[in-house]
Amino acid sequence: MLKVPNHQVAGHQAGDGKLGPLVDDSGNFYKPLQSDDRGSNEVFFYTSFSSNTNIPNHIRRFFPTFHGTQLIEASNGSGKQPHLVLQDIFSGRLNPSIIDIKIGSRTWYPQASEDYIQKCFMKDTKRSSLALGFRIDGLQIYESEGSGFWKPDRKLIHKFTAEDVRLVLRRFISSNSFAGVDPDCTFASTIYGGSGGILAQLLELKEWFEHQTIFHFYSCSVLMVCEKESVVKEMSSGAEVKLVDFAHVVEGKGIIDHNFLGGLCSLIKFISEILTCSDVHTAKASLQDP
Amino acid sequence: MLKVPNHQVAGHQAGDGKLGPLVDDSGNFYKPLQSDDRGSNEVFFYTSFSSNTNIPNHIRRFFPTFHGTQLIEASNGSGKQPHLVLQDIFSGRLNPSIIDIKIGSRTWYPQASEDYIQKCFMKDTKRSSLALGFRIDGLQIYESEGSGFWKPDRKLIHKFTAEDVRLVLRRFISSNSFAGVDPDCTFASTIYGGSGGILAQLLELKEWFEHQTIFHFYSCSVLMVCEKESVVKEMSSGAEVKLVDFAHVVEGKGIIDHNFLGGLCSLIKFISEILTCSDVHTAKASLQDP
Repeated sequence: MLKVPNHQVAGHQAGDGKLGPLVDDSGNFYKPLQSDDRGSNEVFFYTSFSSNTNIPNHIRRFFPTFHGTQLIEASNGSGKQPHLVLQDIFSGRLNPSIIDIKIGSRTWYPQASEDYIQKCFMKDTKRSSLALGFRIDGLQIYESEGSGFWKPDRKLIHKFTAEDVRLVLRRFISSNSFAGVDPDCTFASTIYGGSGGILAQLLELKEWFEHQTIFHFYSCSVLMVCEKESVVKEMSSGAEVKLVDFAHVVEGKGIIDHNFLGGLCSLIKFISEILTCSDVHTAKASLQDP
Repeated sequence: MLKVPNHQVAGHQAGDGKLGPLVDDSGNFYKPLQSDDRGSNEVFFYTSFSSNTNIPNHIRRFFPTFHGTQLIEASNGSGKQPHLVLQDIFSGRLNPSIIDIKIGSRTWYPQASEDYIQKCFMKDTKRSSLALGFRIDGLQIYESEGSGFWKPDRKLIHKFTAEDVRLVLRRFISSNSFAGVDPDCTFASTIYGGSGGILAQLLELKEWFEHQTIFHFYSCSVLMVCEKESVVKEMSSGAEVKLVDFAHVVEGKGIIDHNFLGGLCSLIKFISEILTCSDVHTAKASLQDP
């Protein structure tokens, strides 16, 4: 039984006769192959990445598992269409908070057409990519059983400034993630911090990007996922970093991906600052305890 | 007594009635203030940098010391003109080998005019900046007492590909740095390697750039300097890294300089590779020794 994913925060979405990804109950995610070069390029990336023995296993875990391609009934009713079969990274998660962050101050690759470069260039300038080295492309943050998720409209996300990005990254790890409230960053040390936290995972990725010259990841996203309820109930945050969207990956040709690395370092700085700040808050709070 | 510097490898050069920097015998470097915003911007940077107490001393040493501004006779005979008074970083050096590397895949800042961005963008694409995250802007490499320096023409430098850059970075630390010869990388471990070597200095800079959000250094150069003769005679390489050219520095506003950091990491990767390779060569050679 294929169905529309519950937790998609960016990209083309299935439903209302539109083409988009589907999931099944066995933990698979079916992504329709885009009809232009993007589709074949993403298949090429997954195939090449899967078989490349130079990718260390601790890096491989940041990528969805690839199970090949398959013809399945497309979500828009256009009949059987080729889909990438990938790991459904949200399978088994109840109320995941997710931020989709497109990394890089530029989303276009040097070999692209002039029109394409111009289009991306305008978008990178309008959005926060040029200034921050990354931009938030989609998000859902779990608030409570009563109010569900905060999932702002695309138009709002497209207007995010550096300050908005800071606020979202703080709401992501707060117990009071409601609009108009100063986020308390309660879960910072469990979700961002610690040896299995988001920051540690991003630093592991960074270390790889300082050396790897195999691929350049243009217009690729880092997904940050966590489950706040689990922190409270089980003291486990479910903090996970995944890379997705490889339609614009090109060969590295012996050069590191300085565009991705620069953006990733900028994101790491944003998160480190929240962690340092919240440490200070926690320390202050414990000093004030009777 | 002011004179034209002996070891300038890039930028406007004095002489033949042209405006350019001058040096004196006391170790000062006089750089004419460019008449447009660039002049005042560079003065502003040096003033602000000098007085900023958040710059650690181990980072300050990568910048030329600033001694204010002074009216002196300009090199083009136009009378007294304002100059920046800086440390002459080549003072006391006999036959320094120098590479001037402009860091960043883009040399323009987001606030610049559309015309300026377009001009820089074209240059960054034609030269190696976009691909490598940096470009060589000038160089002189000491060969021998007989043949002096290899100092290629600007037009040749402007055509440098990734492979040319690799070759230049190898010639910089070779005893046989002649055209058409495969560089032997004899001095790699003393000039690039070691605790005081170029790589260690670049890594120290990188560590700062991962955190500092005070300045964004657009169109700024890393100078790499060494003295091959000293390695042979005194077992000291004179390896030094300096940052120069701050006419396009802008405020960081709480964001790291991901454009500079990305390019710097790319340069570090090029140099690490040469060092690793030459280690392998040295190991092989010592294994082959009787």
